[in-house]
Parts: sequence; structure tokens; C-alpha cells
Amino acid sequence: DEGGLLGSWQRRNTDATLSHCLKQLEESGNLDNLRRITDSAPAAFRGMWFADSDVYKTLEAVAWELGRRPDTALEQFLDATTALLERAQDSDGYLNSYFQTDHRDQQWAELVWSHELYCAGHLIQAAVAAARSGVGDRLLRVARRFADLLVDRFGEGGTDGVCGHPEIETALVELYRVTGHRPYLDLAARFVDLRGHGLLGDEPKFGARYYQDHTPVRDADEVAGHAVRQLYLLAGVVDVAVETGDASLLDAATRLWESAFDTKTYLTGAHGSRHRDEAFGDPYELPPDRAYAESCAAIASFAWNWRMLLATGGHRYADELERVLYNGIAGSTSLDGTHFFYSNPLHLRTGHDGSHEDAPSQRLSWYSCACCPPNLARLMASLQSYVATTTEAGVQVHLHTAGRIATPHGELAIRTEYPWDGRVTVSVTPATPGAAWTLALRIPGWCESATLDGVPVTGEYAEVNRVWEPGDVVRLELAMPARVVAGHPRVDAVRGCAALLRGPLVYCLEQADLPDDVLVDDVTLDARAAVDVGAGDLAPVVLRVAGTHRDPAGTPLYEPLAASAPGTPIALTAVPYFLWANRSPGAMRVWIPLTA
Amino acid sequence: DEGGLLGSWQRRNTDATLSHCLKQLEESGNLDNLRRITDSAPAAFRGMWFADSDVYKTLEAVAWELGRRPDTALEQFLDATTALLERAQDSDGYLNSYFQTDHRDQQWAELVWSHELYCAGHLIQAAVAAARSGVGDRLLRVARRFADLLVDRFGEGGTDGVCGHPEIETALVELYRVTGHRPYLDLAARFVDLRGHGLLGDEPKFGARYYQDHTPVRDADEVAGHAVRQLYLLAGVVDVAVETGDASLLDAATRLWESAFDTKTYLTGAHGSRHRDEAFGDPYELPPDRAYAESCAAIASFAWNWRMLLATGGHRYADELERVLYNGIAGSTSLDGTHFFYSNPLHLRTGHDGSHEDAPSQRLSWYSCACCPPNLARLMASLQSYVATTTEAGVQVHLHTAGRIATPHGELAIRTEYPWDGRVTVSVTPATPGAAWTLALRIPGWCESATLDGVPVTGEYAEVNRVWEPGDVVRLELAMPARVVAGHPRVDAVRGCAALLRGPLVYCLEQADLPDDVLVDDVTLDARAAVDVGAGDLAPVVLRVAGTHRDPAGTPLYEPLAASAPGTPIALTAVPYFLWANRSPGAMRVWIPLTA
Repeated sequence: DEGGLLGSWQRRNTDATLSHCLKQLEESGNLDNLRRITDSAPAAFRGMWFADSDVYKTLEAVAWELGRRPDTALEQFLDATTALLERAQDSDGYLNSYFQTDHRDQQWAELVWSHELYCAGHLIQAAVAAARSGVGDRLLRVARRFADLLVDRFGEGGTDGVCGHPEIETALVELYRVTGHRPYLDLAARFVDLRGHGLLGDEPKFGARYYQDHTPVRDADEVAGHAVRQLYLLAGVVDVAVETGDASLLDAATRLWESAFDTKTYLTGAHGSRHRDEAFGDPYELPPDRAYAESCAAIASFAWNWRMLLATGGHRYADELERVLYNGIAGSTSLDGTHFFYSNPLHLRTGHDGSHEDAPSQRLSWYSCACCPPNLARLMASLQSYVATTTEAGVQVHLHTAGRIATPHGELAIRTEYPWDGRVTVSVTPATPGAAWTLALRIPGWCESATLDGVPVTGEYAEVNRVWEPGDVVRLELAMPARVVAGHPRVDAVRGCAALLRGPLVYCLEQADLPDDVLVDDVTLDARAAVDVGAGDLAPVVLRVAGTHRDPAGTPLYEPLAASAPGTPIALTAVPYFLWANRSPGAMRVWIPLTA
Repeated sequence: DEGGLLGSWQRRNTDATLSHCLKQLEESGNLDNLRRITDSAPAAFRGMWFADSDVYKTLEAVAWELGRRPDTALEQFLDATTALLERAQDSDGYLNSYFQTDHRDQQWAELVWSHELYCAGHLIQAAVAAARSGVGDRLLRVARRFADLLVDRFGEGGTDGVCGHPEIETALVELYRVTGHRPYLDLAARFVDLRGHGLLGDEPKFGARYYQDHTPVRDADEVAGHAVRQLYLLAGVVDVAVETGDASLLDAATRLWESAFDTKTYLTGAHGSRHRDEAFGDPYELPPDRAYAESCAAIASFAWNWRMLLATGGHRYADELERVLYNGIAGSTSLDGTHFFYSNPLHLRTGHDGSHEDAPSQRLSWYSCACCPPNLARLMASLQSYVATTTEAGVQVHLHTAGRIATPHGELAIRTEYPWDGRVTVSVTPATPGAAWTLALRIPGWCESATLDGVPVTGEYAEVNRVWEPGDVVRLELAMPARVVAGHPRVDAVRGCAALLRGPLVYCLEQADLPDDVLVDDVTLDARAAVDVGAGDLAPVVLRVAGTHRDPAGTPLYEPLAASAPGTPIALTAVPYFLWANRSPGAMRVWIPLTA
């Protein structure tokens, strides 16, 4: 299985998701919106006023994809869309189809909701991807013209302003990395420090916390507000901190990371406990049913953790990277690659209807606010970038997957069935036979017992520091028993429940695995019974465990506390969370009540 | 204690809340908005576009109050405001300060959000209260002129339209009851039947369920959408069903009542599980922390249950009437009578900040959308109306409270400390000595053991059918031990918890009763220990029970399921929920985790 599970996700992205996104951009009017600026195009603007960002995210995905392999259709899309952007861009560099057409008078007038800088950020990220893939000098020039305008307008001595939706910060640092042009970094740093001083005003319905303008990030001690906004901001904060060597800013990011991951993260790695404002809640407020858990927030968390890992080498960041990838992110896309969740709850009741709040019980092919699908596409198209890192000292493998990794120290050929199996075999072909360097293979935080070439190893990475010769093989074995986990006692919403995990995967119960007359709402888990690992139709590994079914018919809503009525034993099958809702829409739960 | 606890609430309303509302209507601009129509008044419209309804609710409260006792200040307010309305009203009867001033072109243009009929309904209810109190012929004429316009415009053969916010339905039936004018009833019936056919369109963000336009009420089998809208509608549905003798409509109301009270009602009687759309959630979705539980929804539930009780005599309706009054409603007002909750959660974590979503940790003196305070005032001013009913067969006492009840059959003098004590002594002075009739005293659903004059009684009402002579005394004794209750197994959010109740009162733990270093977030209840009843500073009866404190510092967010770490025994004091947040803002919980 070339590339393993991660590779299969990339292939699905290649084969289905990317072309689906291209088609949707036409059908939903995103490209026509841009054509309206200079070309003959249909009458009305369509979609959200920040619909350009969907084009840019898709461009970014296409650019990453073209960095991996040639593709005529994708090249044509990149060329045609770049040409369209070139025509559409104002002579001063401004580019935004909503404000350039019917709302010219509002240009730059209301940064709090305009998403102009947000859209600019995604344009820049697409250009950065194209530059790194070596396929898009023209796109980079478009992005730089806009970025130069931003520097002129918002740089030191210019307008004090920040965008209601962070994104521009990380984009500008990335553009600085690609171009070496310092003003981009300086502007990113300025945006970070201007935030939290009330420039956006008090959002009337949600409060200034909604867009993280309630307090400067250096003073904040709690992640708050709209989850995607908060997490995009923090990715940019780390970027700025690293590139400017600003230790206190990195300290702030670390402190906020602890707030997020110690008190406000779902078991799937997802974020956002409230639908009302798509926001973080109070610490430990993590309802599985009302999890907003937006796909974009999971992607943002992935980006933030990747940056924290690079900045610090910290092991917990790799754990969170893996957790959110295999669960919060992976569950967003259907097996066919063309349907997506916007919200990713950990519990769906029988009969739930959440279609009016972007929490349907089935993945949809697109959304009126379609931020998530092309966001997933751009991550999947670049997934290989997050597998390993290299330093002068050697190679560090963070995400175990089958495949080949080329590094300055040599090539690694990795065979593994991970995440279904914990055995990882690495064959090394050193660039310089006889050279000494360290191969570090991550031991995930969930793993309680690992061996390296049969010898027990502990720590965060299994390190092999040796002189490498062609044909050297290292075998890591991560024990991967099923695990039964509980929530922190303050996580009220999962009290009396447990969840099943194995390796990096969270499992769930689905109605599809139960008889029609046994609702998933009415089963409990016997945690004293052993969890058996078996093969399933939906996944190579499913978990089987004993449970109890109780029909609660006739039970009042509230009644005197008493011992549970006896129930009927039932065999339960748990499937990987990331695969749920691929057979039929139906009830699901990650957190399973415990049999008393 | 004349009037008991209910009487004390009425006195607080008299002494503090009513004058507070009058003051706020001036300060917040509600009266100025009306003055802008014809008088010289400040420049701009202030507040919500339906701010007139706050004036009408206050007028209704004042009218009920004047029916109880004379009050010069309140009479002046009634007269002056009525005169203002007379001047402001259009010649055709239209009256709405938002649409008569700056938005005349939008009059009747957008019923979905305009609240024009909603405001008209509250005007009518104020007029009905004035008529019933014998204080407001002029106000009744104003209301009738508007109602006649509505009949012309929306009656049979007129415009097919319904209001986005139900309220007009029950108001029109009440106006029919006061005037005997059948077209008012017919219009109410028409509004009920026009609803659910898509006249309002699909609300883009919340769906048509938000305003109960997704399905006709006769076909609905689940309460849904915005809780206040749903519950006001159902009060009107029962009114229409009763006055038109429409059994199938009453069946629909009964079916929806079961949906609400079997699956979607908080232990406090409150409704509304979601902040996002102030809405009911899925069945059994009842998170204590995220309870929206709007004060107005509790008042609406009270109104609906009262109508169901009158329509059917059903005992469960009286139970819910009592439950929501003593908990969901009573908790909304501060001890000083001038601060109010909009949202009434059953759980507030340490450090919670919900001020931006009308869920602050302290009651506020007013709100930008101030629907709740004057709504509470109008209920409290008319509370005596809901204590008992009379029929040819006798007198039925539904809410036990100290006081005197005058009926055609005679006068009842009731002595009791209810709800603190379950003994109720009724002295009867019959209107006609020697006449036979039945005195029925409610045995609440929560009561498991009752005696009448020392003899055990069961059933829904303790009935005394006898020939009454002056000085006859009946003694009802309701056993009132503390109760420990659990939620239905599908109420996921309270799994592993219990709540303490006594009589009709729900109790809660407050941080104010714990040492500073013991957070209410970290205590559990030992349900095997006895619950002791004691006297407290905050309330005549508090509950004391054994618990355990565990400091969770260092506990990861998720960890392998294991037995709880041992904790420290701690004595817990639970206080009546309706009194919470009167000492200091702080954490609170109704549902207490059980010691494992």
C-alpha cells in the first residue's frame, strides 16, 4: 500500500476532491465573481463576500499538487486563474471581487467584517505554495503586488488596523520566507501587536473575544472566541515569534497552547464548543453533541501544532498534530472524497436535524460558506510535508506512514500498516555511506510500550545514532492495544462515559452496526470486559466490546436516583471515528455511557 | 407571613420591580419612542425595534397591580401612557413607534421580523388586564381599534400572513373573552392555521423551525425552534381550541406538551437548550451549563400549562406550573427585585463570562433586549389569579400558599409555610352555611405521602366533599423529605449526577457556601449519605449532605479509565436554586456529580 493511509488520502484528494473543488468554484460563482471585475460575466455577485478565499485555497491545493506531479487540467486551472487574477487586480495591487465590483465605496472601510486581509492572506498562501512547488512565478507576483500595497497602507506609519479574521499574519511570514523581503515580516508582527487594543470595536453580539481583540495576545491566558480565528492567529504568532526571535511572543503562544490543549480540546483534536459564535467555551466545556468542531479549526490546529513542533521540538505538539489529523480532520471528508462535514460532532442523536446550523447528519457536497472543502484539499495536497523533518543532526519522523522520504542524509523507505498496526520498518539508504547521523522515530504519547529492534525504548523519540550503511534497517514496534479512556472530572458532558481508542484513532459506535430495534442512544459499555480487535468491512481494524441495552420507554425525564434497571447484553462494534457516516446517516457516539 | 412566599414575591414586585420598570422605560427610551410619533421628543429611536412591547408588558403589570390595590403613581402612569398611545395611534388603528416614525415605508412589509403583530398582542394583553381590573376602558378602546384593523387586514378574505413571533394569537382570544367580539377569536384561529405553510419563508440562518413555520401545529409532533415563540404559540393554540371547541387542535397541543415535558424540559421547568437560536434542542439535549432557559420562556410555559390545566383539569399541568414558577421563573429576579436573569442556566463554572450572550453570572438591572423584566412584573402582579379555580362543584386549590381565597362558595383562609413546610391548614367560611360542595387540595406529583386530617390520601387532589359550616377546618399534610433525583438515561449532560430537591424546590450548590480553596467544580455528592434539612441564612430551609472534594490539578484532559482517586470528605450545603447569585457572583451547579 504505497503511502499507507495518509497516501490514500492524498490519492483521494488527487482523484476526487480537487476536481470537485474546481467544479464547485464554477457552479457556485466564485470564479464568475472575479470575472465580473474585468470580463463579461453573469450579473450578480454570488456567495459569501469572502468567496475569493475559496478560489485561493483551491489554487493553493492545486499548487501543492503540481509540486508532486504534473497534471494538465490542474496546470490549466492554475494558468487560467492566475491570468484572471492578473486582469482583475487593480493597478495598485488591490484584489477582492466583492469590493471591486458593487462595493467599491466600502473598500478598506470596515476591516472588522470585510475579510479583505483574510482573502489577501489566502492569495498569498496560494502564491507561496506555487513558489515552493516551482509552478507559479506569475501568481507570486500578483500576491506580492497586493502584499506591497498592504505594507504601504498598514505598515509602520500607516493605518493602524487589523482584520476581523486572522490569516494574513501567517501568510505574510510565509511570503517573507519565500521572498526574504523583511517588510512582510514586519507587517505580520505589527498586525499581531495591534490586535487586542480595541481597534475592531466591541462586536455587538459576540463581544470582542469573538475576534481576539479583547486583549493583546502577549497578555492573554486563555484561548477564546471564534475557534478558527483564534487558531489562525496563533499559527501566525508562532511564525512571527520564530522569525523575529521574539521569546516572549513564543511564551504567549505556549501559554495559550496549554489553555487550548489542557482544557478546551475534544478527544478528536477538534476545537469549538459552541455553535452560537463558533467559539471556544469555558475551560472543560466540551459537549460531544454540541461540538462545533469546525473542519477549518482542526486544520488551523494542525498548522499551529506544526509550527510549535518546528519552533520547539516539543513532543506534545506532534501528538496533537497526529490526533487532529487522524480524527478531527480525517473525519471531515467522505470516502468518495466529494462530501464534507463543516461541523464534526462527537455525538449525534437519533433523529437529529442540524442542517440549518451546518451540522447535518451526513456530509454535504458543498456549503454556502464553503471554507472547509478547499481547506481540506490544500492540506491533503501537502500532507507529505508534515511527515518528517531534517536537521544537521539527522532525520526526525513525526508521522508514521508507509512511503519513501528523501532527505539530505539519505532516503528512508518505510514499510508499515500504521495506524492499523504499530510495526514500522525503516530501510535506510544513506546519501554518504559511512556517515553518522541520528534517525529519530517518534514514540507517540498514547504508546505505553515500544521496542526498537526488539529492545524496549522509552522517551519521546526512539533515536538511532549510528554510522549508516546502505541496507541498514531499523524496526520500531509500538504496542497498540485498544484503550478505554475517560475525561477529566471537570468535563461534565462526558461524565460516566468512556471512549475507545487504538493507536492514534478514536473509535465510535454507529447505528449502522446495531440492530434497528437497538438505538445507539440506549446502549452502555461494560468497561470491565475486554476489548477485542477484529477486522471489519468499513475498516481493517474495528473494536468489539460487551455492552448492555436498555429500552428506556416509560422512564420519566427525572426520577429518584436508583440502581439501573437490568438490561440485555449486547455485542458492540466500534469503528474509526474518521469513517463515520459513510454507510448511512444515523446516530453516532464517541463517548459511550458505562454500564453501572 | 401574609401571602407566604408567593405573597412576598408580589410585595417585592409592588415595592421594587414595578417602579424599576417605569424608570427603565424612561431611561431606555421606550416611552420617548412613542412620543416621537406626535410629541416633541429626542431625536433618535432607541432600543430594539419591538421596544413598544416592553411598554405594553409594563402597562399590563400596572393594570393587574391596580386591580389589587390603588396606587397613585401607577394610576398616573396608566393614564399618561394611555393618553400617549391615544395620540400616537394612527386613525386606522395602527400603532407601532418604530414603523410610524422612521420606517413608515416598511409598515406591514416584513412580518417575519417586524414584530408588529407581536407588539399588538402585548398591547391587547395590557388592555385585557386593564379591563379585567376595571381600570382601563380607554386602553381597551386603543387596543380594539388596532385589533379591528388586524381583523380587516388579516381576517378571512384579507392578507394571508402570520407574525414571525407568536403572541397575537393568545392576545386576540383574550380580547374576545373580554369583549365577546367573535372576529377576534376567528382571527386568532386563522393565524394558528396559517402558520406552518411557509408564509414566513425559510429563515436563512436558523431554518423555518425557528418560528414554527416548518409544519402546521396540527401536524407537529415535536416542540422546536425558538422556545419563547413555540410556547407563546401553544398558549394561543389552547386558547383557540378551547373557545372554538376544536378537539383536534387540543390534541395537537397535548401531543406537543408531551414532547416538551417528556423530553425537552429542564429540572427547573425551564426551556431552551441552545444559545445559538434560543431554541429547543433534540429530545434529551438538556445541558445544564448551556441551558438558555430564558425567563420569558419560563413565563410562556407557565401560561401554557395554566391553559392546559383549565382546559383539561390534568394534574401534570399543575405540577409543571408549580415547578417552573418556583424555579425557572422565581430564580430570574434578585432578592432586591431590580435585577434579572435573561438566561437561567443550571450550571455556571468558575470564571464563566457569558455577558455577551445574555448569560452573565449576575443578574443585571436591564437588558438591551429587555423582554424579561416587564414580563416577570406582569406575571407577579397577577400571581394570585393562578392559585385556585372554582367550578359549580366547588373550589380547587392548585398552588398552596398562605392567604385568603374568596370564591362563590365561600372564603378559604389558608395557613401554611409552603414551600418550606408541607402542612396546609384551610379554614372555611362558606358563603351559604350548610351548602355542600367539594374542596379539592392538590397533592403535588412530587409528594409520595399525604394525609388529610391525619388520614392518608392518594390521587391528584385531596377532595373534601361535605356540607360546610363556618369555622370548618381541613388539614392537609404533604410529606416533604429531601429528594435525590437522576435524569433519564438519554439526558447525557447529567449522567453520573444527581440533583437535590425538596417539595417543589430545586436546590443547588453555590461557591458562596464553600471554602475559597474548594471549587464547586470539584466536589461530588455522596448519594448514600442522608440529606439533612436545616435552617440557613439565605433560606428557611437548606439541605446538608456529605460530599467529597478532589483537586484535579495535574489530571490530564483525557486518561485511561480508572477508579477515582480518593478525595477529602466535605460537608455540602445546598440552597434553593431560585435564590442563587444573591450573595456574590460565583460558580453554581444544580446537577452534582456523584461520588463514585
